[in-house]
Amino acid sequence: MAASPHREMWEKLNLDIEAHDGLLEVLGKFYGDIYLSQEGRLGGMEYLDFVLSEVHGLRIREIQDARAAGKKVIGSFCVFVPEELTLAANAIQVGLCAGADAGKEEAEKLVPRNTCALIKSFIGFKLARICPYTESCDLIIGETTCDGKKKAYEAFGELVPMHVMEVPQQKNACDRTLWKSEILRYKDRLEALTGNTITAENLKKGIRIINDRRRALQRLNALRAAVPAPISGRDVLLINQVSFYDDPIRFTESIGKLCDQLEERIQKKEGIVPESTPRLMLSGCPMAVPNWKLPYIVEGSGAVVVGEESCIGTRNTRDLVDESGQTVEEMIDAICDRYMKIDCACFTPNTERLENIADMAKELKADGVIHYALMFCQPYAHEAFKVEKALREADIPMLSIETDYSMEDAEQLKTRVEAFVEMVS
Amino acid sequence: MAASPHREMWEKLNLDIEAHDGLLEVLGKFYGDIYLSQEGRLGGMEYLDFVLSEVHGLRIREIQDARAAGKKVIGSFCVFVPEELTLAANAIQVGLCAGADAGKEEAEKLVPRNTCALIKSFIGFKLARICPYTESCDLIIGETTCDGKKKAYEAFGELVPMHVMEVPQQKNACDRTLWKSEILRYKDRLEALTGNTITAENLKKGIRIINDRRRALQRLNALRAAVPAPISGRDVLLINQVSFYDDPIRFTESIGKLCDQLEERIQKKEGIVPESTPRLMLSGCPMAVPNWKLPYIVEGSGAVVVGEESCIGTRNTRDLVDESGQTVEEMIDAICDRYMKIDCACFTPNTERLENIADMAKELKADGVIHYALMFCQPYAHEAFKVEKALREADIPMLSIETDYSMEDAEQLKTRVEAFVEMVS
Ligand code: SF4
Ligand code: SF4
Ligand code: SF4
Ligand code: SF4
Repeated sequence: MAASPHREMWEKLNLDIEAHDGLLEVLGKFYGDIYLSQEGRLGGMEYLDFVLSEVHGLRIREIQDARAAGKKVIGSFCVFVPEELTLAANAIQVGLCAGADAGKEEAEKLVPRNTCALIKSFIGFKLARICPYTESCDLIIGETTCDGKKKAYEAFGELVPMHVMEVPQQKNACDRTLWKSEILRYKDRLEALTGNTITAENLKKGIRIINDRRRALQRLNALRAAVPAPISGRDVLLINQVSFYDDPIRFTESIGKLCDQLEERIQKKEGIVPESTPRLMLSGCPMAVPNWKLPYIVEGSGAVVVGEESCIGTRNTRDLVDESGQTVEEMIDAICDRYMKIDCACFTPNTERLENIADMAKELKADGVIHYALMFCQPYAHEAFKVEKALREADIPMLSIETDYSMEDAEQLKTRVEAFVEMVS
Repeated sequence: MAASPHREMWEKLNLDIEAHDGLLEVLGKFYGDIYLSQEGRLGGMEYLDFVLSEVHGLRIREIQDARAAGKKVIGSFCVFVPEELTLAANAIQVGLCAGADAGKEEAEKLVPRNTCALIKSFIGFKLARICPYTESCDLIIGETTCDGKKKAYEAFGELVPMHVMEVPQQKNACDRTLWKSEILRYKDRLEALTGNTITAENLKKGIRIINDRRRALQRLNALRAAVPAPISGRDVLLINQVSFYDDPIRFTESIGKLCDQLEERIQKKEGIVPESTPRLMLSGCPMAVPNWKLPYIVEGSGAVVVGEESCIGTRNTRDLVDESGQTVEEMIDAICDRYMKIDCACFTPNTERLENIADMAKELKADGVIHYALMFCQPYAHEAFKVEKALREADIPMLSIETDYSMEDAEQLKTRVEAFVEMVS
């Protein structure tokens, strides 16, 4: 492997160069097998291929250049962190959820073995010094969503600069009050960190940019209702994953172009798969880069994925912030209301999610749903029972899967998925 | 086994008589082995033996008589449910945490396999119809403490009448506001259920009764600092467990008498064990009746348990409600403040607990601490790492144990505990 032109930058970020080289090599191979091997992909996906190939390279360089020019970088693990405010403070927000086993043994010295793979992974990435995003952050925002993350941040906070936002657990009036005060506390923290004041003007712009990104992804998701499916689920998952790293304005533009191509393809009644291909929807825990395991297995089993009901999917894009607010106060209220609509399993009750899943499955003409929970994720594992019941009532078959990032259960999963695909065909 | 005089009552409560007989038989045998076999127990323990032998009999009869006379019964799973208010509304509060494997397979149809034994147990007890307390409740109060319970209550709430209180996750001003509004919501619910108004007079009395119970248990715990230990850990665990079922006034009186006997014994420098016996403290998840597994193993390994840092232990008794309030509003504030001091692992951060454990270990002259987490309990499993570090800094050795209600790992635990006892001796 030729020495990377980014090596010096990675060294400056104090990455473990050898381990990082290893990660990139595995990632590249994995990406080739899962993505580049697909036939009939749209030209617009080249942009995504490029972004992913430079996810640790050019994008990090951009971020470092911005930092050199005085910008601050905020890391997050959850779609509850309001990026509108981050942008208003002229900072950059990046997602730090991690989707590969790395540094697992080291992580298990800080968090229990019975912790979900996503948490072990972001801690492992930090301990193994292989994530240039984590190393680029001026502040990392945690949230009190699940027990696993809530308590893991206590250990993580000893390694990185952290700020924890309290996400309420119900949706009553007192919860909105609490959440609003947490948003204001985040605003204060951002202003202190960046030295920038959040004004009506820059907040309006922040709301607009993030809403535009959501609108682009909404358009993409709506186009997937077409039969035959115009794009693979793997590709859309990748797009959703990249939305957490890439510059939001550039990203929105590229997705717009991709959607134009999709519309052409749909008009010609062309698809990425034949019309008769069974259509499945995924629902559950977020799949962070490079966790492409399940869509790869599903799409290798004769089905196509037409929707991702998850935070790296529609949960992050379904609701817009109302844009009519003129004052900072009004806009903060609109942000508060929008985020209180998130149907994360950390809420009790969380009945909206059940309705949203059934609606989405119908709109996307899904033949079935695969519910995906990371092993030891209690919120989603509990909801799997409720989702199954709600879908049964809507006459939509569901397969419940619990897994982690290892490939050990791949064969077993494939057998179960194939049987499910057979059943819904 | 002779037919029980309580059989008709149990039938009326719709218990599964056969399964319930089986439970009582196992319980009786277990109690004989673990409790009645002890030598040198104080006379005052006879009261506890009697209460436990009638825990499904006379106490349930009392409760049923009270219900017939119009009283309401409130079930709870957590020391966050303010019993002061329950008493003020002239209702009875009972703990429903369950400490035995029963109905586990059935429970696993409603909650994930990766759920802690305590949760599976209370759901299993309900599904198997073997808990006369659960069946006696007019309302059951849940709380949003851990993910496991929070989400399990959604399923449980389809089987029983429930009210869920939101416990905040941090201890800032907005959290106290949220918690106060939850206390007021509970007050409203209680008043609606019982038809009784909570007045300054009856609330003052409720606070007094519960504070008195706490004071009695504080006195008991303080007496355990004596060398040699005047009472076994098993017995004190039982006392703490019974405190969640028994009439609080009667209970407080009996513990007072027991403490008088303990003082006599201490003056004579007598103990339940020789002076040289290694003294261990337990810390972690609550041990609900009849979960006597770990203390039995510890005290069968040549050590004596001198403290329980848990909710069925000092976490429930350490802090009193300030008694100076005169109006309902003042008393509600005092209750709110007292409960916000609880150092449950569901909070982030929860540094008070680390200080409390180290202080307690020193006061009780403990030679070591055994940290106990139920398998799949994320909050306490995470804190085990922090507790170990805090104790290391205080030069107190710690053994970290994760287990459940089955006896399968008993031998293995015994080996580990014996090695630890050896080490601290
Ligand atoms: S699933 Fe819930 S906790 Fe996870 S990222 Fe989404 S909103 Fe946050
Ligand atoms: S997958 Fe589940 S346990 Fe893991 S971080 Fe997300 S909500 Fe928490
Ligand atoms: S450990 Fe926490 S959740 Fe459990 S009973 Fe105690 S306070 Fe409640
Ligand atoms: S032991 Fe842990 S997981 Fe189980 S109910 Fe208590 S806090 Fe929740």
